[in-house]
Amino acid sequence: MTEPTTKRVTIAAVARLAGVSPSAVSHVFNGRPNVSEATAARIRAAADELHWRPNFASRKVSGQGGRSLGLVVARSRGTFGRDPFFMRLLAGLTEPLAEIGWSLSLTLVRAEEEEQVYRQWWGEQRVDAFLLVDVRDDDPRLALVEQLGAPAALLGAPVPGRVAAVTVRDGTAFAEAIEHLTGLGHRSITRVTDAPGLAHTRARDKRFRAAARDRGVVAGVAAWEPDAEDPVADLLGRLKGATAIIVDSETIAAEIVAHAPEVGVRVPEQLSVIAWEDSWVSSIVRPRLTAFDAPVEESARTAVTLLEQLVRGEDVASRTVTGRRLIVRESTAAAPHNREGSS
Amino acid sequence: MTEPTTKRVTIAAVARLAGVSPSAVSHVFNGRPNVSEATAARIRAAADELHWRPNFASRKVSGQGGRSLGLVVARSRGTFGRDPFFMRLLAGLTEPLAEIGWSLSLTLVRAEEEEQVYRQWWGEQRVDAFLLVDVRDDDPRLALVEQLGAPAALLGAPVPGRVAAVTVRDGTAFAEAIEHLTGLGHRSITRVTDAPGLAHTRARDKRFRAAARDRGVVAGVAAWEPDAEDPVADLLGRLKGATAIIVDSETIAAEIVAHAPEVGVRVPEQLSVIAWEDSWVSSIVRPRLTAFDAPVEESARTAVTLLEQLVRGEDVASRTVTGRRLIVRESTAAAPHNREGSS
Repeated sequence: MTEPTTKRVTIAAVARLAGVSPSAVSHVFNGRPNVSEATAARIRAAADELHWRPNFASRKVSGQGGRSLGLVVARSRGTFGRDPFFMRLLAGLTEPLAEIGWSLSLTLVRAEEEEQVYRQWWGEQRVDAFLLVDVRDDDPRLALVEQLGAPAALLGAPVPGRVAAVTVRDGTAFAEAIEHLTGLGHRSITRVTDAPGLAHTRARDKRFRAAARDRGVVAGVAAWEPDAEDPVADLLGRLKGATAIIVDSETIAAEIVAHAPEVGVRVPEQLSVIAWEDSWVSSIVRPRLTAFDAPVEESARTAVTLLEQLVRGEDVASRTVTGRRLIVRESTAAAPHNREGSS
Repeated sequence: MTEPTTKRVTIAAVARLAGVSPSAVSHVFNGRPNVSEATAARIRAAADELHWRPNFASRKVSGQGGRSLGLVVARSRGTFGRDPFFMRLLAGLTEPLAEIGWSLSLTLVRAEEEEQVYRQWWGEQRVDAFLLVDVRDDDPRLALVEQLGAPAALLGAPVPGRVAAVTVRDGTAFAEAIEHLTGLGHRSITRVTDAPGLAHTRARDKRFRAAARDRGVVAGVAAWEPDAEDPVADLLGRLKGATAIIVDSETIAAEIVAHAPEVGVRVPEQLSVIAWEDSWVSSIVRPRLTAFDAPVEESARTAVTLLEQLVRGEDVASRTVTGRRLIVRESTAAAPHNREGSS
């Protein structure tokens, strides 16, 4: 009953009803401010009356916008919903997208449906480019987007092949964290990872070990086991004497500082904690988290710029974004042996 | 250079190259599993080779899917990015949307651009329906979507007019909260709101006052002032003897319990706090928040069902979703006068 009659009503009919030229109608619907407010209102009323809408696909072909960026996230509702990084990313993407008239098409998928969704969205012209996140080692999406000929960029460490990467340059971040901790007397530091399969996780492991070696610090890497009965107690039991941890995920760092005292470990008195990411969550837990503020919004904006250039047919290269900086709050303090020595 | 040649290559050409019938090509790209994996792979390879993609707009007209739900959020990056409700909503929408082959088109806008984005997205056929959130009193979007003829539903309290609402039935929620608190000896309770202009906020004020009156409780309403120098101290200074608060926003409730001790108010010893929403955040602060778990995912699913029916041209009515339930954690306890009396 409300089946659109789009295909039968022409732009000429709308123009006739509004008493304007077809190009004036076109101007209004393409957001170009060449007509007066009153005329624009009359044109919109005429279009509404006739249920006329400009043709999306033909506008696309003629390069008049209406584009969309596809973001396909292979995460469960739970791990997506509790990661403030994604909220910062989504918010950070929509602003530069709006500036160029693009929308953001978002979906969560199971890993096994991922490829199908990319094919389908691209096949349907639903999106004009893809932003890849959570890129894994040997990620099949890299070959897929090349095969489809779909403009794509990824957030994270650069990978072999032709997909451009937007990387947060944190070459000195581990050095900074380790310097902060050794200054407090820590000599054994463990990095806590939550997604061992991701390409950028492995790259970070390497950089962490190198930075620790440079400073004569004992370096460990421990994986967060979310399925353990008490993941915090489980992790703390595997630290092998480390007096400080650097945690990839802010949410996990927050859980650790909140729950550690309840399993007998005081933060920061017995254990210092640094989060690799920062959001409002770091300031809501007690002690407040010492954390790295990553330039999420700038990464998002850079990715959008790069994708727009790709869609225009320009060549692009990977980019780095700088600005991961350590915000010292309350979850890091003197190492316990230093404390005992001084008391 | 990579300008798509979509318009020149026909489905017949793809079928010829793959050695199949055009309808087999169509089946593969519409996700219908009527062809073998091997044939599907051959067809995809042929389509990729020719850079062929099915026409999005014509598929829409023929009712073969490719639809999209528009979610236009008039919030700043900051207030969007720190509200776990939106993460639950986004995650909750994508699942039922994926089941019916729809995508989610998301954007954040300034309030003054809101109407333009609705018009543009609808005009471009970028979306097939809208979900309205944060509906305000006399919200201009209600008339706008009717005028556009765009299928739309809203999350929140029903409003006059023809836009169907999906409402969480929480008729008994305030009674439950007040009963919990009076059982602990509280006699003066204040509701803390953060968005006084929203239609559902006013509806809640009324229900709160009625529930309090029924139980002989002194009821207050206080607005959260985010621009105050110390919003928590500011709010606590305006409670006029209330010993318990019910806070609309979980994030604000979390800030209150985290920061109150630092301005001299112990939770729950001197002040009990209930959050009207629940997410993982409630469990990460100390004391853990007593909170109402709202059926966000079920609301999202109900809205998707309703919008799909609207797009099919069916008549729909507003729906209610039940299930807001109080989860008692650590932020509510005996009122201070009861405490003193008993010690």
